[in-house]
Amino acid sequence: MQIYGDARSGNCYKILLLAAMLKLDYQWQPVDILAGDTKQDTFLALNPNGKIPVLVLDDGRCLAESNAILHYLAAGRAYLPTDAYQLAKVLEWQFFEQYSHEPYIAVARFIAKYLGMPKSRQVEFQQKQAGGHKALKVMEQQLEKTPYLIGDKFTIADISLYGYTHVAPEGGFDLSRYPAIRDWLGRIKNLPGYVAMETLQNSPI
Amino acid sequence: MQIYGDARSGNCYKILLLAAMLKLDYQWQPVDILAGDTKQDTFLALNPNGKIPVLVLDDGRCLAESNAILHYLAAGRAYLPTDAYQLAKVLEWQFFEQYSHEPYIAVARFIAKYLGMPKSRQVEFQQKQAGGHKALKVMEQQLEKTPYLIGDKFTIADISLYGYTHVAPEGGFDLSRYPAIRDWLGRIKNLPGYVAMETLQNSPI
Repeated sequence: MQIYGDARSGNCYKILLLAAMLKLDYQWQPVDILAGDTKQDTFLALNPNGKIPVLVLDDGRCLAESNAILHYLAAGRAYLPTDAYQLAKVLEWQFFEQYSHEPYIAVARFIAKYLGMPKSRQVEFQQKQAGGHKALKVMEQQLEKTPYLIGDKFTIADISLYGYTHVAPEGGFDLSRYPAIRDWLGRIKNLPGYVAMETLQNSPI
Repeated sequence: MQIYGDARSGNCYKILLLAAMLKLDYQWQPVDILAGDTKQDTFLALNPNGKIPVLVLDDGRCLAESNAILHYLAAGRAYLPTDAYQLAKVLEWQFFEQYSHEPYIAVARFIAKYLGMPKSRQVEFQQKQAGGHKALKVMEQQLEKTPYLIGDKFTIADISLYGYTHVAPEGGFDLSRYPAIRDWLGRIKNLPGYVAMETLQNSPI
């Protein structure tokens, strides 16, 4: 299988982290979002919505949306509960991530780190702060009660939220006020097969 | 089970539509988002993220996020493929809905229909139009090829996208330029158990 993505993206890192933990073989196909690669016809043929990551199976079938890809790769392997309620809770956290977390934390990080905080987007950057902290508070409240998001066991819900939470300071979010989140980040870093985002960015994948 | 929601919300309608199609019994617990009900402590105890809908099971366990609830209710019943790739495609469309469709189409509709298009939000309303049409084009492209979003069979992915697409004109989106979407809306309206959003809004649920 092939994974199309940009190693600077937390959404792509989620897939690479799960692949490392599950020891999956894949070919990495680098896509440069800042250079406009996702707007090219060749990329839009893989995902008409023009977003990374995209998984391309050996038979040519494509799958987009980071959290959908995590489900496909984890199915029948690990980190995905089989109990119906627990599985739905994994989905609850992943939809929370895409609606209430990523649009604030990932976008603030993108403006600050990759666009270099241009004047034209400083107001937007500031507006992202309240929503980001609201999402972090929801996570903190859960992680005060359980070591991982849906209980005692690490699941792909944790991978989904780890993607941008661990780099939230790059978007201006001070994590020192979230001790339960910080402990959770530490637990994930110690899991077997863990690989850091910077490692993937700095070495050929 | 109990469903907490606001009948004006497309996210809540998704759950009520699936429940009608599957003939599920539930108690409806009305929540008035415009009156601030979702910010009250009693509601935040059900969903710390302060959003509807919320499903409360008979044993008291809660589940938030409309698309996670659809998966929980459809599991082992109908409208959910068991093939791993097809299931992941359902999720792909549902994450697309929450990230690339709802934040444009549902928010534009909310500003126009429920807030009465206040001057302070007219710029935002206009800014939502391009993103909404981009999402509709992605849907149109798929529905030109297949009768439902992931192929020949109706799934909960169709319910997720139907929720706000069928009321997109209330957000200023002219659907006359999307013939495949219009045909698809017509097919869904003719499915067994279909119930209109207005019917649920106008009669006690």
